[in-house]
Amino acid sequence: MQKIGEECGVFGIFSPTRQDVAKEVYYGLYALQHRGQEACGIVVNDDGVFTLHKDNGLVNDVFSFEQLEKLGHGNMALGHVRYGTSGGRGRENAQPILVNHIKGSMAVSHNGNLVNSYQLRSELEEQGLVFHTTSDTEVISYVIIKERISCGSVEEAVDRAMYKIKGAYSMCIMSPTKMIAARDENGFRPLCYGKKKDGSYVIASETCALDTVGAEFIRDIEPGEIVIFSSEGIRSIKTHCGKAKKTLCIFEYIYFSRPDSVINGCCVHDARVESGKFLARAYPVDADVVIGAPDSGIDAALGYSFESGIRYETGFLKNKYIGRTFIAPGQKTREDKVRIKLNAIKSVVNGKRVVLVDDSIVRGTTCARTVNLLREAGAKEVHMRVAAPPFKNPCYYGTDIPDREYLIANQHTVEEIRQIIGVDTLGYLTLDYCKNIACGKDMGFCMACFDGNYPTETPIINEKFRFEKKLSEKGNK
Amino acid sequence: MQKIGEECGVFGIFSPTRQDVAKEVYYGLYALQHRGQEACGIVVNDDGVFTLHKDNGLVNDVFSFEQLEKLGHGNMALGHVRYGTSGGRGRENAQPILVNHIKGSMAVSHNGNLVNSYQLRSELEEQGLVFHTTSDTEVISYVIIKERISCGSVEEAVDRAMYKIKGAYSMCIMSPTKMIAARDENGFRPLCYGKKKDGSYVIASETCALDTVGAEFIRDIEPGEIVIFSSEGIRSIKTHCGKAKKTLCIFEYIYFSRPDSVINGCCVHDARVESGKFLARAYPVDADVVIGAPDSGIDAALGYSFESGIRYETGFLKNKYIGRTFIAPGQKTREDKVRIKLNAIKSVVNGKRVVLVDDSIVRGTTCARTVNLLREAGAKEVHMRVAAPPFKNPCYYGTDIPDREYLIANQHTVEEIRQIIGVDTLGYLTLDYCKNIACGKDMGFCMACFDGNYPTETPIINEKFRFEKKLSEKGNK
Amino acid sequence: MQKIGEECGVFGIFSPTRQDVAKEVYYGLYALQHRGQEACGIVVNDDGVFTLHKDNGLVNDVFSFEQLEKLGHGNMALGHVRYGTSGGRGRENAQPILVNHIKGSMAVSHNGNLVNSYQLRSELEEQGLVFHTTSDTEVISYVIIKERISCGSVEEAVDRAMYKIKGAYSMCIMSPTKMIAARDENGFRPLCYGKKKDGSYVIASETCALDTVGAEFIRDIEPGEIVIFSSEGIRSIKTHCGKAKKTLCIFEYIYFSRPDSVINGCCVHDARVESGKFLARAYPVDADVVIGAPDSGIDAALGYSFESGIRYETGFLKNKYIGRTFIAPGQKTREDKVRIKLNAIKSVVNGKRVVLVDDSIVRGTTCARTVNLLREAGAKEVHMRVAAPPFKNPCYYGTDIPDREYLIANQHTVEEIRQIIGVDTLGYLTLDYCKNIACGKDMGFCMACFDGNYPTETPIINEKFRFEKKLSEKGNK
Amino acid sequence: MQKIGEECGVFGIFSPTRQDVAKEVYYGLYALQHRGQEACGIVVNDDGVFTLHKDNGLVNDVFSFEQLEKLGHGNMALGHVRYGTSGGRGRENAQPILVNHIKGSMAVSHNGNLVNSYQLRSELEEQGLVFHTTSDTEVISYVIIKERISCGSVEEAVDRAMYKIKGAYSMCIMSPTKMIAARDENGFRPLCYGKKKDGSYVIASETCALDTVGAEFIRDIEPGEIVIFSSEGIRSIKTHCGKAKKTLCIFEYIYFSRPDSVINGCCVHDARVESGKFLARAYPVDADVVIGAPDSGIDAALGYSFESGIRYETGFLKNKYIGRTFIAPGQKTREDKVRIKLNAIKSVVNGKRVVLVDDSIVRGTTCARTVNLLREAGAKEVHMRVAAPPFKNPCYYGTDIPDREYLIANQHTVEEIRQIIGVDTLGYLTLDYCKNIACGKDMGFCMACFDGNYPTETPIINEKFRFEKKLSEKGNK
Repeated sequence: MQKIGEECGVFGIFSPTRQDVAKEVYYGLYALQHRGQEACGIVVNDDGVFTLHKDNGLVNDVFSFEQLEKLGHGNMALGHVRYGTSGGRGRENAQPILVNHIKGSMAVSHNGNLVNSYQLRSELEEQGLVFHTTSDTEVISYVIIKERISCGSVEEAVDRAMYKIKGAYSMCIMSPTKMIAARDENGFRPLCYGKKKDGSYVIASETCALDTVGAEFIRDIEPGEIVIFSSEGIRSIKTHCGKAKKTLCIFEYIYFSRPDSVINGCCVHDARVESGKFLARAYPVDADVVIGAPDSGIDAALGYSFESGIRYETGFLKNKYIGRTFIAPGQKTREDKVRIKLNAIKSVVNGKRVVLVDDSIVRGTTCARTVNLLREAGAKEVHMRVAAPPFKNPCYYGTDIPDREYLIANQHTVEEIRQIIGVDTLGYLTLDYCKNIACGKDMGFCMACFDGNYPTETPIINEKFRFEKKLSEKGNK
Repeated sequence: MQKIGEECGVFGIFSPTRQDVAKEVYYGLYALQHRGQEACGIVVNDDGVFTLHKDNGLVNDVFSFEQLEKLGHGNMALGHVRYGTSGGRGRENAQPILVNHIKGSMAVSHNGNLVNSYQLRSELEEQGLVFHTTSDTEVISYVIIKERISCGSVEEAVDRAMYKIKGAYSMCIMSPTKMIAARDENGFRPLCYGKKKDGSYVIASETCALDTVGAEFIRDIEPGEIVIFSSEGIRSIKTHCGKAKKTLCIFEYIYFSRPDSVINGCCVHDARVESGKFLARAYPVDADVVIGAPDSGIDAALGYSFESGIRYETGFLKNKYIGRTFIAPGQKTREDKVRIKLNAIKSVVNGKRVVLVDDSIVRGTTCARTVNLLREAGAKEVHMRVAAPPFKNPCYYGTDIPDREYLIANQHTVEEIRQIIGVDTLGYLTLDYCKNIACGKDMGFCMACFDGNYPTETPIINEKFRFEKKLSEKGNK
Repeated sequence: MQKIGEECGVFGIFSPTRQDVAKEVYYGLYALQHRGQEACGIVVNDDGVFTLHKDNGLVNDVFSFEQLEKLGHGNMALGHVRYGTSGGRGRENAQPILVNHIKGSMAVSHNGNLVNSYQLRSELEEQGLVFHTTSDTEVISYVIIKERISCGSVEEAVDRAMYKIKGAYSMCIMSPTKMIAARDENGFRPLCYGKKKDGSYVIASETCALDTVGAEFIRDIEPGEIVIFSSEGIRSIKTHCGKAKKTLCIFEYIYFSRPDSVINGCCVHDARVESGKFLARAYPVDADVVIGAPDSGIDAALGYSFESGIRYETGFLKNKYIGRTFIAPGQKTREDKVRIKLNAIKSVVNGKRVVLVDDSIVRGTTCARTVNLLREAGAKEVHMRVAAPPFKNPCYYGTDIPDREYLIANQHTVEEIRQIIGVDTLGYLTLDYCKNIACGKDMGFCMACFDGNYPTETPIINEKFRFEKKLSEKGNK
Repeated sequence: MQKIGEECGVFGIFSPTRQDVAKEVYYGLYALQHRGQEACGIVVNDDGVFTLHKDNGLVNDVFSFEQLEKLGHGNMALGHVRYGTSGGRGRENAQPILVNHIKGSMAVSHNGNLVNSYQLRSELEEQGLVFHTTSDTEVISYVIIKERISCGSVEEAVDRAMYKIKGAYSMCIMSPTKMIAARDENGFRPLCYGKKKDGSYVIASETCALDTVGAEFIRDIEPGEIVIFSSEGIRSIKTHCGKAKKTLCIFEYIYFSRPDSVINGCCVHDARVESGKFLARAYPVDADVVIGAPDSGIDAALGYSFESGIRYETGFLKNKYIGRTFIAPGQKTREDKVRIKLNAIKSVVNGKRVVLVDDSIVRGTTCARTVNLLREAGAKEVHMRVAAPPFKNPCYYGTDIPDREYLIANQHTVEEIRQIIGVDTLGYLTLDYCKNIACGKDMGFCMACFDGNYPTETPIINEKFRFEKKLSEKGNK
């Protein structure tokens, strides 16, 4: 499918004894790189002295051996990978954010999107606060610090701040002596922690990052929960738990999370395989071969094969050397660009009735080109199965989705889409099925992008703010 | 499996009419990048004026948009991707090689390894020729140019030169007005050509590169054949054809070539699937799931599944962001490095009897670590199936293989290997099966790395030369 | 002499009509590069939308053509070159600083050092403000913004802020519609403005930057003055003028400013020539040749020659290719490093009685090595004349000076220094002469580094703060 | 004056005992950087194993600490700085050139230009030799190697080769066991050697490089001489000495060499001062101040001042931060570019009658702009004195000079030039004076660029070759 962006992956580590935790953040960020490729950063806490390095680029680009060495030693460290929209203002918005206030230093890594950031920002500005970035993370930091002045601990300040900040956030906050993990009461974005055999605690957006550093998964942070890691052990604050309906972003299962990650006890790979099975039951078809669109359609394609008994095959070869800086000189059409990235294996699809499984359809253009590659390679029939419902609405919680008019399912019926992308049959996942996408558990999802039911009240208000701000932007000088 | 290196991919284009062929070489090299990641280069021929850019690095690193622009226009161009051993002398050895001689300029891209390069080099040096690199390509160029002086055309010079150069070579030679493809009489390395709808001829190591630029495959260059592309059309010289037994490197099917490439009419993916089927017949086992070692074991794993009826699953998640410059700070063991690159999907293998299919076992160390990941993830049994015979001997034709003492199959019996890598059962492809690995066709293979039958006479002589040269290296000053 | 660092050069431009002012800042920063080589930045104001680029490095490194293009268009722009101590926290501290507050955006470029920044910072932090950097510029910005909330214009806020910020500052503040230049009431650092023929106003630390962009010098900003440039013309606020003794940093004449700059009507080159003349009158000697230590001793050497009648010559060749990244592999002593940078011209000094004029002596080590080069080249006598008084005290106003114990004049008498650096005679500028160093005008100087008379009350208090802060740094977590 | 390019600086070192000589080449190349800023390289000889690194860029850019380390150890090393014309084919032409032949390896660094390189190249190509570059250095190497086959030692081969190569060359040749310095029989380019206290011998284009590494100058290599440095000591071959008139390039004194270098016993600085004195005697004028065009006119300006008694002053401030990558965005005229690089010190020239001394006038354009800066700064009169004769003819010996039609003195009389550049009076050095420019010694010069008397026979032949080659370039395919 076409690339959908989400903002960010978070990784933190607290060790009661070891001083060399920076490198584990480095490995952890590698494991979370799929959550954001625009920028990354690590801040190390050496007995209260914070050293930060962040920049635009992949982990591989930003952290040389030398640069990692410069971060020095410390028993706590915090990292971040960032997905950024093209309009962003450059590396100023990279995370973690590191600030100094009356009670010391604080670093914050954040994944998600506030729905009332404009209001909060305005209020803070009225109180004389000054913003250096356009990120929600700075807003969150300031709200926490405001509270920190009049309360006894960072965690208390975080707790109070959570009454004010609305929307999606899974975050890690590092103070001179504590590492704090917190998740919004809806639990939009995943966040979990684990423990290494040496006693270090590791917090991460996904369990795959725990695996990478050899930490054993303990549990997910609950929606609304604040967990404090310090030399005095672990402590949990649950003031905000249960205050809202649980609404994990369903796209974590459909697309964002790595297949080997486990969220709420359900392995993402398994959930996708099950979706494929459902598609086979819901939209059976006589066919010769099932293939997945690389890489994100493969799990569901396997499921379709398991359920239907139609042979799963590798239908495409994906060129793994096409990097971020790939240029397409002399290429007039995106069609050509697809051809360079993907090549259909002719002997697999030639003369065959093919079931093509993908994770979702956004604009429909990439999908149409992929189908076209199959036709050119001789596929007799192409039956498209989509492991997500039709994509109709924007997201206010941190997923970067094109405007409504570009969402093919917002503009067209399923039958129209079938014709546009040029397939013989087309089947989507149903909304009903999605409720149980997590290996059959009904755990509460935000599916607003599919059904338009936004779990928070403010998105429309925030949109209004955004609109008014744009109007007044030139006036206030 | 552990990475085995082969030297190089070749891509050339000749257009009777178009002047913008450089970008097609660029795309072609992307498609061939798996054949060599150390260095790459493109030389463009603008009516006899050659412009070259080459450097160490991936296509993505070496060719910026600006750099491509600087190559300018021309109706012929030649490219190369290079696999290089660490001891190489840097970018001097990158290809294509571009030289000037009495009859004009000449560029050469070459894939393979001569077995008599030391002798040829010595003879040329005795005649006063001077070498700037340590590559066989320079030797080949000089032999051709020597002949060129006294004969009427480049192709005639190539023909004469082929009586002298022994070993493995699939190459492209660009003169001011001609593009020439030639392949050694054994046909060790693949080479084919195709045609675009605009009339351009494209020569490439593999068909996947033809697909990428939208060229239709015409045929493989025959072992011993010289094909000349010029404004007068295509011409073939077959003086050397049939002079030797056909001995295509069997590793092209097992590992080197891209699955979507077709060699001698047999799709590489299909050949691997068939190998997997053979393994299922030869080494059946009661098991719950078949998985492939990413990425090169997946095709054969599918085959094993097809034949055995045991479910194929995705057993590992491979981190696709681990780049060439990946550093492993604080990592004492290679074990850890494997863990960062691969993560077993627990829900797939936990409590299961697993068939693990890989393409080959070289040293056995990577294999043992991969098996260990499965055990840690809870696999009850691990049955290893290897889509190649035991790897016992060095290669003199361009494949970079560790010394004999590091080849686990050279030092140990299959049963010993089974114990070393820690699997319950272990099955290799048989030598007999390999003869028909190409979709059942007996097309002649070099399997010296497995059976020790070297198809050329000289490798031992060359080794002797090498040894003596080392002895005398310090003396000749 | 040894390099002494000062923090920063400032350059701003306001055009009532033109939209392409960014490039003039670029040229202006080149002209001011001698005031700071650590970092630089430019922010362009396009009708209220600010675009900033800043990074560590020289103007040449930070601003490529592409990068300049990205800054876009605008009728106002602000730039900065920064001198930074090695302990600085990287590019976060680069300027201009760009922030957003309730009344809009604001950019600030600042040259100097506050003496009460720790107090101000603490007060602001107590009010909940959050600091992203350790620079005084952020403190100044926040103080101004605090005032801005409750007053009608930026200039009024600046005026009010100036009652609070103490110490040395020459700064430029850019609001969405105004460019404001302000200078502390002591006038420690220079700041002036000029006008281009096209009506643009240019503000700069030194007149040489006006010359570079073809602007005609109008006048120096007065100590304590605020000058506002906007579409309504120029306006001056003089509330703070005359509140303090004028105490321009005398090092601007001695070392910092470029010789072709004019401060308070006196050309820096001329002032240095006059100092040389005074040295000739005060410390006459029988000698054959006068030479200057490159580059900063040359002007005074000319003056010594004019007054004494002893021939001025070029005594040293300075290697102009020794860049910032110069490495000195295998060089054990700084002696060798001096030899690579400087070479005495033997024929000029061999067998001669040499008068060597330098601008100052800090630690004495570089000076001793320079003298040694002359001795090795055959100088019979070396008479050192220093165009500054003995350097005895630290600076609290922005000059980066080694600790007292490293200042040779703080630890030794003139006679001892003479012996240490190995010269036959040694003469310093007198404090009395310095009062009139500006071409004879008694314009008021801060000479605290020579005489210990600090013109502000707070430096000692600030040092106390610094000390206490260090003590408590680890405690407040 | 406008920049004139010359090809290259050479530096070699041979130590009978030390293994760490690479770093001395590094320092030596810094000292010779003024002779070439396009490319540089170092090759280290570790007991017959050669390690080379070369690339486009300044020494500062090409050699990081890491890169120097990679060169490893060795008791011999050879370096080169290269001046290259823009049309050059990139880093392939960087030096030293390192090649392998039947008798071992050989590295060559060369300064100068052959006049019969086209003929030699053709002859070698006819014998089947193959060229990888377009540089004379490769031609020289091949000629030597050709001889080497049939003779007993490298030095004998060099001796024989020198009968064949015609033109300007000062070169260093490194064989596995010897370092050989050789200079053409005319002695166009300087070359000398010295000795360090540790017994190492150092060969360099200029003495300033000896000074930099602490070597004591021993003597210039004689025109036609071959000096061999090996473990058996120093040996000289003088077969070619005295075979031709000595014709050192006069531009070495006028412009190329560093002022602190000594050629043939005469310090370059002194020669320039003397030229200035002659100008004062030949073209006296009533004036207030003498200034030099930075940097190359300063020495002669001092001389003019000494002789005339008119005060020498610093008339211009040159911006030392304008690097090679300086871009001039939005600058339409070169006039502006001059203004950014140079600023006249108004107080020095305002209302004054100024004598401006420069080293030469090539096109006249830079000169006119410089004069204009003085006029703008208020100079009442400008009297130009040029420390070279009128520049009329091209150079065939390695100096990069614009075509005849761009040489102002080739197209105009002195009076016309005076008007074009806009000065009150104009005086050039005379040809007669130039014969004795080297501190009064008549040592034999090539002054062809001034008088058209080319000391070798072949330049015209070579030009003919060049012309014919261009004609046939497209034909020979």
